[in-house]
Formats: sequence, structure tokens, C-alpha cells
Amino acid sequence: MDRPIITLLTDFGLNDGYVASMKGVMLSICPEATLVDTTHEVPPQQIETAAFLLRTVYESFPRGTIHVVVVDPGVGTPRKGAAIRTPDALLVGPDNGVFSCVLQTAPALEAVSLENTRYHRFPVSATFHGRDVFAPVAGHLANGVVLDSFGPSLTPFVAEWASPRLETGVLLGQVIHIDRFGNAITNITTQDLHRLTRDLERLSVHAAGRDLQPLARTYGDSPPGTVLVLVGSSDHLELSVNRGNCARELGLEIGDPVRVARQE
Amino acid sequence: MDRPIITLLTDFGLNDGYVASMKGVMLSICPEATLVDTTHEVPPQQIETAAFLLRTVYESFPRGTIHVVVVDPGVGTPRKGAAIRTPDALLVGPDNGVFSCVLQTAPALEAVSLENTRYHRFPVSATFHGRDVFAPVAGHLANGVVLDSFGPSLTPFVAEWASPRLETGVLLGQVIHIDRFGNAITNITTQDLHRLTRDLERLSVHAAGRDLQPLARTYGDSPPGTVLVLVGSSDHLELSVNRGNCARELGLEIGDPVRVARQE
Amino acid sequence: MDRPIITLLTDFGLNDGYVASMKGVMLSICPEATLVDTTHEVPPQQIETAAFLLRTVYESFPRGTIHVVVVDPGVGTPRKGAAIRTPDALLVGPDNGVFSCVLQTAPALEAVSLENTRYHRFPVSATFHGRDVFAPVAGHLANGVVLDSFGPSLTPFVAEWASPRLETGVLLGQVIHIDRFGNAITNITTQDLHRLTRDLERLSVHAAGRDLQPLARTYGDSPPGTVLVLVGSSDHLELSVNRGNCARELGLEIGDPVRVARQE
Repeated sequence: MDRPIITLLTDFGLNDGYVASMKGVMLSICPEATLVDTTHEVPPQQIETAAFLLRTVYESFPRGTIHVVVVDPGVGTPRKGAAIRTPDALLVGPDNGVFSCVLQTAPALEAVSLENTRYHRFPVSATFHGRDVFAPVAGHLANGVVLDSFGPSLTPFVAEWASPRLETGVLLGQVIHIDRFGNAITNITTQDLHRLTRDLERLSVHAAGRDLQPLARTYGDSPPGTVLVLVGSSDHLELSVNRGNCARELGLEIGDPVRVARQE
Repeated sequence: MDRPIITLLTDFGLNDGYVASMKGVMLSICPEATLVDTTHEVPPQQIETAAFLLRTVYESFPRGTIHVVVVDPGVGTPRKGAAIRTPDALLVGPDNGVFSCVLQTAPALEAVSLENTRYHRFPVSATFHGRDVFAPVAGHLANGVVLDSFGPSLTPFVAEWASPRLETGVLLGQVIHIDRFGNAITNITTQDLHRLTRDLERLSVHAAGRDLQPLARTYGDSPPGTVLVLVGSSDHLELSVNRGNCARELGLEIGDPVRVARQE
Repeated sequence: MDRPIITLLTDFGLNDGYVASMKGVMLSICPEATLVDTTHEVPPQQIETAAFLLRTVYESFPRGTIHVVVVDPGVGTPRKGAAIRTPDALLVGPDNGVFSCVLQTAPALEAVSLENTRYHRFPVSATFHGRDVFAPVAGHLANGVVLDSFGPSLTPFVAEWASPRLETGVLLGQVIHIDRFGNAITNITTQDLHRLTRDLERLSVHAAGRDLQPLARTYGDSPPGTVLVLVGSSDHLELSVNRGNCARELGLEIGDPVRVARQE
């Protein structure tokens, strides 16, 4: 049998021992797991960013991968922990919206609230459920423990910002991530754009006070310094500056509105 | 047999090839090892931080884990290299105090000075013992080579700052780590606090010109912005600001004094 | 058989999901691969830095390691992708010079252009060949697919800056990397220095308006604050300040000239 894969996505940063503690717990329970870091540099408590980044890596992993996300401003309060099965993967983390972007394209087939303390580390720290709840649950899932062992059934929370709204022929979305190259990535997918037209060349994008059209194919299609709009490698609409930093140059931030309409 | 686990904790950062070179050497010797990064962002040459961070992850790893620590301002000088066996783990690194926090709770059952050049890489660079001494020793330990093969017996160095002093009923400790969230973590453990009283609610903490009491249970127990003192997930006393950055707001730095006493 | 090792060296940073996406694709194709990060903090599009860093780790990995480098300003344009076999390793990445430093000491025994789309992910994104071309090719190489399956033969590009020039008895090199400790590392190797003399103590180095001599053996050989020149752990000449930051103190940057001559 293949070795189970567990990915980790947190806002813990890389300066402390938090991530390694989670890995130690996982390997204590499932020594043959392959652990992959998605990122630990989610800005503290930015659930939107975590949700988007999980979506960008989700389809690159093989079926059965376990994705653990710990961006958890409510740790120690009564918010629930969740384990969710989709057609492709298992998801483990707080039930606060971090799985929203994935659950819009991959339905939750089964989901439970992580209430069975038999699968937690003892004692559970009030401040570090990543190590004491989510890591051990992931380790046991990797060992083949079935989902309903972990607790009662749950309907996972999907946040509103995860998808754009369509109003009178205009798609109203927002920036949900700025990547290292300064590309401003929106919550608008190709599937959303198709609600306006199948001919993406006819679309016009309005953001940061500018009208941008038509969609480009890749960064190098225009001269250096040009502001581009294109569907990026994660299938989300993004604003970019060829060989520049779009977010900085246009002053774009997470949450900023982006509108898409058909050209007249 | 389970695959051996080797953790790495250094001040090498992630911008260079130093960490990967160590991993290449380890995998050359023990291809089936599972390598886990604790952190490589210890501030350059901060032995205290390294010692504390190793302590925070130590108990999360399974028995037999090999922990390699390379924070080594004395590389190339006559300071010794050490391999140490505790009841739970094997420790490899310079004998300069980086294992101090672990060795206060887990005794050294056996320790050797890494003088047998048969287990070093050849030639040993004067500036990179991480790759040429500590990595190959860890690889051979993972392969089951016994400790006394690596050199003569040694009494490992434990630094004074690793534990607080008790003077006339007052515990005198210090800040030894600032984490990503700005929590200021001290060298004072629950065990130390119990020397004052078993009833932790009766303690009063003095730091940064403030008197703080009583101990909180988790960050969310007080309104946002409140300065809290609590025993964190690593079992060390820490100062925190709920949803804020305690170290920045109180001007706390590594080495700053923290006093704990019983309330009158 | 040993598990195949794949290293990754990119300018993707660690804040996004790009690196994890590549790993997901590799593990989908070759689940037993051991993945090692060299670094992902190459400054965006700095081919020289990538080439040097690969050189620094190259000899620490066991024979047969697959090194994937993705620093690729020309993604989506007609630049070629390459897979190259040397006596020690397999190299995968854009054919833009990122392998220059390795190929100067390890000859390319065989090299191909990655044109066979059967080994690419479908569809190939115009902006992310790391995930859609280089990662799947590395995964198939790890599975043992032979090199000439991936496309027609190619002569890999080796950039001029990879080696210093010798002019009238003076070696003219440049800074190609600044490491975390501020050491300014040049493109001049011991082998290059031997073209001037076998007696390295007789060399004089001119950089940042200073004449430095003789070569030191390690950082601690001089008092703190002293500017040193030495052959570092990667066998390249580097400028350093004992317990200081040489690049900052001398104002050295990548590309700055460094001259070496025999002392009169």
C-alpha cells in the first residue's frame, strides 16, 4: 500500500517549534506517513488566505491525501473541530471556514465533529489544538480509522466570501490572496466567469479604479510593467504586472472588490 | 522496524543551501531516515532560543528520535561536539548549552565527545561542522551505530540561564523566547512554580514594570488587548496579549527578568 | 532499492502553495520519493543565485539524486525545458543557465529538451511549468523512465558569469551570492585559484576598494569585526566579517567585481 500523505497548512510561521510538534505527534501515531508543508506563512488568523491556498494545492495531490489546516483564532473557545471526507481527500481542522474554497467544488460526503477524546492527545492544551487534537486525528486517519469514530455528524461551515455574487449581469468578487510575486488573486474562478459568457475574451474587469481587458494568457504576453488580468494556474482570476508587483503598484489588498462584466 | 526520525534545529535560515547539504549527507548514510525541520530561524548564534525550542518539541516525538541542533558560534575552535542519550532520544550538536533545557527534565544517560573522525565527512570544513560532523554522526546513529563508537565519554554542559533561581520565596527567571505571535516565553516551568505553591491561582508575576495576576487558562479568557500571563503549550510561563503582540507592546526582549511570587 | 531523492530549488518563496503543488504532483507519480527542499527563497528570477546554491548542495547528495530547479523568468515563452544526466545526478528545469555552476565541474553526459507532452500534466498552465512540466518529469525520472523518453537531444546552456576570467595574471570574478550571515560568496573556486598559484597564502584579494590578504582558514581566526577572505565550505572564495555582516558593512552586492592576484 502507498504511504499516506498528510499536508499541513497553518499560520504558525517557521520560527517556533509549533509545526514540528504537530509532525512529531503525527509520526508517533503513523510512522510511515509522508508529511508535506503547504505553507505556514498564512498571515495570523487569515482564514480567507488559508481557504484559498488549500484550494490551489488540492488538485495536485493524489486521492486519499489528508489535508490538515490550522488557522484557528477561536482555539480554546467552543468552536468545533471537523474532519471531512470529499471525493478526493480528507480535511482536518477547525470548522471556521478554512475549507470553504475546496468545499465549493468538492462536496462534503461525510463530516464529523472531533469530540471523541480517545483520539486526542492527553491533556489537551487550551492553546494548541494543532498538536493535541488535529495532529493526532490526522495520524489516526492515516492509519485507517474511519471517520465516524471521531465524533458525531456535522454540517461544515462554508463562508460567504468564498464565492462571488452575480448581480444584474455583473460578477462581484474580491481579492483573497496576494502571492509572493505581487499577483492579486480573486475568488472568481473560470466556472464563475462562464456564468457571464463562454467567450472569456469578451470580458472586462474593473479593479483598483481601472478597466482591464481582454484577459491575457500568460505574464509575458504584454510589455514589462503592463497591468494584466488572466486566469492563473489555480484557475482563479488574478491581476498581475509583467515583471512587476501588481498589488504594490495598484495598492490592492485582501478584501478589495473586483467586478467582471461582459464588454458592450 | 520503524523508520528512524531525525529532526534539525539550526540558525542557518532557509535562504542558503546549508540545511539541504546536511540532509543530503544524512540521506547518503541512512536513506530511510525521516527528516523533520524543527526550525532554522533561530536568530544567529542564540543558544538560549535553540535550547528552549528543542524543549518545546522534545516530548511530541516518538522514543528514539535523533535531534540534531546546530547553533554553533564556536565552529572551528576547540569546543567539543557531543552525542547524548536520554531516556527518550538521542541529541547531536555542539556542547555549548543547546541541550540545557532538555537535560533539565531528561537526564543524560550517556554522552560522548565526537572525536572519532571515522564517522566524519572527509575533509572536515573548518566552517561547516553541521554538514561534516553532526550530519554524518546523526546518519550513523540512525543506522544503529552505538554511542561509544563516536568518541570518549563527556559530561554535557548545561547553561545557568536554563533554569530560574529561587531567592527568599521569589522565583527569578527570564524571557528566553519571543514567538511569532509576540508571546514572551520564560524559562519558568510548572514544576518551578510548584516550588512556590501548588495553587497557581495564588501567584503574582512581575515583568516589564507590571504586576500580573492571576494566571489565565487560555488567550481568549480576557478581552482583546489585555495582558495575560499563563502556562503555555510547552509548559513554560509566558506573557501574552489577547489578539495582540505582547513583546512589542511591553517592550520585552530575550533576557528580560521575570519575577514570580505568592500573593500576600 | 533505495527510495529516490528529489530536491527542489525555486524562487517561489514559502507563502504560497506553489511548492506544495509541485510536491503533490511528484508524489502522485512516485509515492516513495523522498523530497528535500534546497531553498525556495532565491530572489525572484535570480538565475545566478540558483546556479550557485545548487552547486553548494550538489556533492552532499547521494548518486542518482534528482535536482529540480525552477527559477524561470521565461515561463510561457519558447525557452526550452531540460533534463540532464551528469555522472552523479539528474537535473531538471528551464534551460536558462540555472545549471551553469554544476555543469562546470560535472559534465553533461546526456541532455534532452522536455518536448514529449506525454510526461506533462494536462493541461499545461502557461504560468506554472514547475507544477505541470518539471514536477511530472522529475516524478517519472524517479520511477526510472529513461532520459531520451522525454524529448530530443539538447546542448545545455552554460552562462558566462559562472566562471571568472584570467587576464594577465589576474583572476576577475564576481559576487554571486550573499548568505544569511552576510558572507559575500564569489564565483571563484579553489581550482580557479590554483591557476594563479598552489600556495594560497601568497594570494591577495581586491574587493569593495580593499586589499585583503592572506587567506584565512575559518571565521574565528581573526578578532571580531575583522574583514576576512577564505575558501568557504562550498569551495568558493568568500568575503566575511568575523561575527559581523560583511556584505552590509562593505556594501557588497551580487555582481560586484572581485579580483585575485599573486602578491608581489
